Amino acid sequence: MPWPSSLQPQSGELAITRSFSAAATGVHDASLDGAVQRFLAQLSRQTGIRLVPSIGAPTTLTIEVAGKRESVQRLGEDESYELTITPSNAKLTAATPLGAMRGLDTFLQLIQINSTGFAVPAVAIKDSPRFPWRGMMIDVSRHFMPIDVLKRNIDAMAAVKLNVFHLHLSDDQGFRMESKRFPKLQENASEGMYYTQAEMRDLISYAYDRGIRIVPEFDVPGHSRALLTAYPELSSTPGPITLDPGGPDLALDPTREETYKFLDKFIDEMTHVFPDEYFHIGGDEVDPKPWDSNPKIQAFIRAHGMKNDQDLQAYFNERLEKILAKHHRTMIGWDEILRPDLPKSIVVQSWRGQASLAVAAQEGYRGLLSYGYYLDLMWPASQHYEVDPLSGAAANLTPEQKKLILGGETCMWNEWVTPEVLDSRLWPRAAAIAERLWSPQDVTDVHSMYARLDQVSWWLQWFGVKHLSAKNPMLQRMAGTYDFSSLRALADVVEPIKDYSRKESENPRYDFRAPRNRLVDAVTPESVTGRHFNNLVQQFLQSGFKDRAAEAKIRDYLNSWRDNDIKLHPLLEQSSLLQEDAPLSENLSALASAGLQALYYIDQAAPSPENWRTQQLAFAKDAEKPIANLLLVVAGPVQQLIQASQMH
Amino acid sequence: MPWPSSLQPQSGELAITRSFSAAATGVHDASLDGAVQRFLAQLSRQTGIRLVPSIGAPTTLTIEVAGKRESVQRLGEDESYELTITPSNAKLTAATPLGAMRGLDTFLQLIQINSTGFAVPAVAIKDSPRFPWRGMMIDVSRHFMPIDVLKRNIDAMAAVKLNVFHLHLSDDQGFRMESKRFPKLQENASEGMYYTQAEMRDLISYAYDRGIRIVPEFDVPGHSRALLTAYPELSSTPGPITLDPGGPDLALDPTREETYKFLDKFIDEMTHVFPDEYFHIGGDEVDPKPWDSNPKIQAFIRAHGMKNDQDLQAYFNERLEKILAKHHRTMIGWDEILRPDLPKSIVVQSWRGQASLAVAAQEGYRGLLSYGYYLDLMWPASQHYEVDPLSGAAANLTPEQKKLILGGETCMWNEWVTPEVLDSRLWPRAAAIAERLWSPQDVTDVHSMYARLDQVSWWLQWFGVKHLSAKNPMLQRMAGTYDFSSLRALADVVEPIKDYSRKESENPRYDFRAPRNRLVDAVTPESVTGRHFNNLVQQFLQSGFKDRAAEAKIRDYLNSWRDNDIKLHPLLEQSSLLQEDAPLSENLSALASAGLQALYYIDQAAPSPENWRTQQLAFAKDAEKPIANLLLVVAGPVQQLIQASQMH
Repeated sequence: MPWPSSLQPQSGELAITRSFSAAATGVHDASLDGAVQRFLAQLSRQTGIRLVPSIGAPTTLTIEVAGKRESVQRLGEDESYELTITPSNAKLTAATPLGAMRGLDTFLQLIQINSTGFAVPAVAIKDSPRFPWRGMMIDVSRHFMPIDVLKRNIDAMAAVKLNVFHLHLSDDQGFRMESKRFPKLQENASEGMYYTQAEMRDLISYAYDRGIRIVPEFDVPGHSRALLTAYPELSSTPGPITLDPGGPDLALDPTREETYKFLDKFIDEMTHVFPDEYFHIGGDEVDPKPWDSNPKIQAFIRAHGMKNDQDLQAYFNERLEKILAKHHRTMIGWDEILRPDLPKSIVVQSWRGQASLAVAAQEGYRGLLSYGYYLDLMWPASQHYEVDPLSGAAANLTPEQKKLILGGETCMWNEWVTPEVLDSRLWPRAAAIAERLWSPQDVTDVHSMYARLDQVSWWLQWFGVKHLSAKNPMLQRMAGTYDFSSLRALADVVEPIKDYSRKESENPRYDFRAPRNRLVDAVTPESVTGRHFNNLVQQFLQSGFKDRAAEAKIRDYLNSWRDNDIKLHPLLEQSSLLQEDAPLSENLSALASAGLQALYYIDQAAPSPENWRTQQLAFAKDAEKPIANLLLVVAGPVQQLIQASQMH
Repeated sequence: MPWPSSLQPQSGELAITRSFSAAATGVHDASLDGAVQRFLAQLSRQTGIRLVPSIGAPTTLTIEVAGKRESVQRLGEDESYELTITPSNAKLTAATPLGAMRGLDTFLQLIQINSTGFAVPAVAIKDSPRFPWRGMMIDVSRHFMPIDVLKRNIDAMAAVKLNVFHLHLSDDQGFRMESKRFPKLQENASEGMYYTQAEMRDLISYAYDRGIRIVPEFDVPGHSRALLTAYPELSSTPGPITLDPGGPDLALDPTREETYKFLDKFIDEMTHVFPDEYFHIGGDEVDPKPWDSNPKIQAFIRAHGMKNDQDLQAYFNERLEKILAKHHRTMIGWDEILRPDLPKSIVVQSWRGQASLAVAAQEGYRGLLSYGYYLDLMWPASQHYEVDPLSGAAANLTPEQKKLILGGETCMWNEWVTPEVLDSRLWPRAAAIAERLWSPQDVTDVHSMYARLDQVSWWLQWFGVKHLSAKNPMLQRMAGTYDFSSLRALADVVEPIKDYSRKESENPRYDFRAPRNRLVDAVTPESVTGRHFNNLVQQFLQSGFKDRAAEAKIRDYLNSWRDNDIKLHPLLEQSSLLQEDAPLSENLSALASAGLQALYYIDQAAPSPENWRTQQLAFAKDAEKPIANLLLVVAGPVQQLIQASQMH
């Protein structure tokens, strides 16, 4: 995962033993050497085998690249590779070290254990990406993410062949990048949590080594409370301005020359840190109030023959684009920046949808899709997987226009997300999006995707991400006990509420200092157990109740859930963080009892009494409602069992 | 844990909220400031609460120290503290920042969650250590342990108030310390895995910040194959010498002046890296062969009027001690170094037992106990907990002689232990030894110890050690599947074979490059589930079969184990690493069936048939035998159930 463009299975397999070795022939560069070293270390981690190649023995995996890579990774640089594995050896060829890196990660993913040892299947793979821009955006403003957290996620990104890491570095809650020219940015607007320039350079080089570009975003003119906390003189509304949550939306004052002088100097400084050609200026969701309420700004609008605030933002963007161009940077921004006044070189990142991209492409603008890829919405992987940058309105573009759609970016907005939670919000779902952006358009089988996603999910652990391992300590913290297995059982079948529905009166969304230590924070966005249980129920129902193996497994689940509340209840009561989850636990047990009763009727081949059914269905329907911002994902399949018990 | 010398519970509790604050008053030093910062960060990690103290509000925890600490931590430096917690605030006082650190860790351990939130109970604690030397030795020669692995274990050590980190830096399998004077040590004898001097200085300062001394050990004249690989001219037997496992034992040649010149220069260099007063020279297990087979050495022995090799080693140690003294270091070594020729300043570390220490103390030598604290022997915590440095022969020493027993050190020899396994070999068992060395001698209740150890085990996770979290990825690696719950069920009730019984023909003990990726490597030395199950059985039997709650839990366990093999078997068969464990899984299921049958007879109040009992007991006895170097820990309690079924 992502599935390659072409894969021919061959017979046999190549054993991975202590004597496994890998060597690069052909063009050498430091980046490739590093990649091979990391590959070998990773192979050792995955298998637990320390490699001790015998001197003089033939190389197991030969890597041959035709040319060097660019010193600053370029959009569209060749990432293709060919990987041929036979029972005696393997060969990886690529035009560039970048392609070789992609192929090495494919090799790692092919390693399996079987009854004779670790091995990779014999196979012939030819692979190249469908889109050149396959990104992940992480919001580090709402919650600062330490460098080590970013690094491990860069490793995971590379593992699934994503190639752009977009850092949302400023917003209302914090300015996260050190500026030596404007030090108040970090001093007054980061609460001490920011990246130094040295750290960022190191991160960029870390990402480069893994074939990943870093694109910085500094959001202007809206989402700029942090910037304006440091430099209130650039604000459209008078200060004092603080980072405290709430308060009115703010925006830079686009009518003052100081604003552009600041941006010119700041961007100049940042281009010396961020070498990437693209520079993201945000540009989204500018609240009209700060401009509408400022008579000077309104006078400026009239004086310059503009119609409204949108015209003013266009004016701002036009000037900003010229500043960027002067510093040899290409502007990228969210949908709202699209205006015909801007040159065709800019890139539009769409949170609104393919239609928005299609409009841009028709006007000759390049675009990226992020609509449908917002991981903070807590959708199941399948829902993201269905979203294609070239579907909907974009499907009707001409081939030339389609080429303007560069790919997409998955986005993670972090109002609710602390560093300990981040990984589980990204992984494994981002891997499904990575496949959408890399693999051929016709790779769409959801069952196949999930079967592979489950494997990739635990494989990714070897790259250091903690999406699976962070859950237990968080549950233990809430439980306050060594044995929290009954809490784990509940946690495994609930999911956070979807979209933007989460509400907490005590710890509201924009209170970025509030604790995020509830059950909703610890559980994964998509319940694997819930999906497996649902699959079993579908299997059982589709078999006309004949699949006894599926039924037995369903019964196992239901039995353990039925008996769970009695174990869990005392634990929930003694923890202030868990009390709110008591009704969920009760519902889980009651649903399980109803499910078992339905199986009883089905096994008896006796239709269930209508009264019972009506009552249970009403209850199960009710149990679908969110409690403590959580959804009980087994409520749906249990309803199906209850309904099916009617059929005899 | 360790339990304090004096603890007076008070009524009420102090709530830990977002507004919690801590501040040091009195004497300031950088070390204390750092400790307070780490304490606050740790408190946030444990609770998931970001601290946002209100300006001007009273400090929740006030820390007052009377004096500064030494710039190089000294043996016996004051570590006492007093901690008073009331429902409105807390006060920590200590003579030194070192004592304050110990108190801060006590505070962290007191944090609990209850129905109203996080809190610490009101309490008055006066605490000081029983022994001034409470160490942990890690063997980094047999398997190199990266710096980050050491750092997280230093954090855990500090959390349980250990204060000496003894690094076994050289042995036959690798020389792990960079020498600029003798660079072949790292170049030829470390396979690239060693600590640079800069890294070591950083580690020493990291440990100092946490109140921990680092004592280096370079093992001479035996256990020195790595050293002699680099400098074969110092060997008693001719070269070439390689690190390869096996081969004859080697030793330095103590008859040549070059040996002492080398040691003088090397020790001089190392004292500039390691500031601690104590310098460990190993000195254990010198094989007689290399000296006996060298005619020149035998001639030297005769020429100097020595009787045997022991005399020669004594001569070597005497000269070595003088070199150390010249460089202002006190010699420490294993039992074998003890000879009346050496000055009383030296310290003997005993792997042989209290008798050995008593003999030394009677002669005026200081000593440390390590016998009984070898974590690599895979003993249960209770067995280590019973070992007291002042018991056995040492109990009869005079009070003055007893003062010569400085404490003890737990030791971890790493022939079988890779970095991914290390933490689970150390924790939580080392915490029980830490308690033995810190707490009053009469703190010996094993039930209380285990109840607290279970809590401390998961609390230690917040310090970064992976003793609990490393298990799942290792099991998944062996299983090759996302769902490995049936393997986890087996893994939870097996323990590695004890003492030095482990044998693997494929991956022998001294093959330090061999993979350590079997079930025996993944499971914890002591099974928590096994202990809990055993406790339930004892409870049930002692109640005269009346404790129905215990019986129900026993039955739950037995039911799940009985049904486990059928789920697990296919998985075991398809993995080369797990096939050897199939008989264990079968035995577990069969034992569970026998246990359930025994419960059936007990519940029926009908004595079980003798035939059945004899047969089942024989089988259960047989199931105690190690398979794949693993012990099935439920075999014992199931035998008790079978036996008990006779009694009606």
